[in-house]
Amino acid sequence: MDRNEALEIVKKQLTEKRFIHTIGVTDTAIELAKRYGADVKKAELAAIFHDYAKYRPEEEMKRIIIEKKFPTLLLSYPSELWHAPVGAHLVREEVGIDDPDIYLAIYSHTTGRPEMGLLEKIIFLADYIEPNRPAFLGLEKTRELAKQDLDAAVIEALANTITYLASKKSPIYPDTFNTYNSLLMKKEEMSIHDR
Amino acid sequence: MDRNEALEIVKKQLTEKRFIHTIGVTDTAIELAKRYGADVKKAELAAIFHDYAKYRPEEEMKRIIIEKKFPTLLLSYPSELWHAPVGAHLVREEVGIDDPDIYLAIYSHTTGRPEMGLLEKIIFLADYIEPNRPAFLGLEKTRELAKQDLDAAVIEALANTITYLASKKSPIYPDTFNTYNSLLMKKEEMSIHDR
Repeated sequence: MDRNEALEIVKKQLTEKRFIHTIGVTDTAIELAKRYGADVKKAELAAIFHDYAKYRPEEEMKRIIIEKKFPTLLLSYPSELWHAPVGAHLVREEVGIDDPDIYLAIYSHTTGRPEMGLLEKIIFLADYIEPNRPAFLGLEKTRELAKQDLDAAVIEALANTITYLASKKSPIYPDTFNTYNSLLMKKEEMSIHDR
Repeated sequence: MDRNEALEIVKKQLTEKRFIHTIGVTDTAIELAKRYGADVKKAELAAIFHDYAKYRPEEEMKRIIIEKKFPTLLLSYPSELWHAPVGAHLVREEVGIDDPDIYLAIYSHTTGRPEMGLLEKIIFLADYIEPNRPAFLGLEKTRELAKQDLDAAVIEALANTITYLASKKSPIYPDTFNTYNSLLMKKEEMSIHDR
């Protein structure tokens, strides 16, 4: 599927503002894929479709989470988290893109996932740093890190998200802090091996 | 065991500064126990002994964690977390205080525990807000909340701890997150029932 065809499909699913965000995520994901040696075509498609399910009715998302046996723990957390796994499913079923890397990248783009692969990290980060995002504390630092060290940038983004949620006294989905801890631990192990 | 006897025993285990902290925790814990209807005597003893194992050698703490089948996950986290479960064990074995509430209150005073009981919350919070602690961001708010709503104060203390660790890019022990989420969810459920 080429870029224009994909954009045509996703445009119908999004608000104009969210479509502009999607373009930003796509350009950023392509840039990150080139920098870190990921499949550029997959990065482009995963980015274009990452918010595919964003505006589905809550009832539909809830039904899919239960039917597809996604973690029902999701249903105890804010519905903002639901569109990612639901989107992974619908992009496969409705759009017909059946690629496990793209599936996972869409699946985990909001919460992260402790065992995230390269493409997942790229989509997670691109969603966070894309140029159309309004500025917030820590964003510039994350953008700088993204140019040097993918894992450090993902850790920074997760730490910012955790801090933001803790400041609002909002619950933090376990995958978010498990991903944070897991990436930190791996970084520490690697630095021990490097000594 | 009376207060003076307990203080005599613990004094030998602590630095002078840590002993002064312990007195602060004890006075605060007694105050909280009176306010929230916990056993004042147990609160006093748990507070006096909460840091009993603080200055044990790391090797001894590690051995006890393995022998007593405490979560070995602790060993992947900073050793500052070890003295709490090890202290619970040693206060029972060496001091001879065999009370499950006091045991748990010492056990969980650093990380929290998702199913914390009343005495555990009191010791966790007293350790955080005791008057000899140097001021830090969020401490005054937590002290104010402690006068009105025990759970809200514990959530505030956990949120501050999480924010502090995230800002340092330090790993966050799962029980800390799980306690934060669990208390928030319970508060939300209660407010739904209250409607």
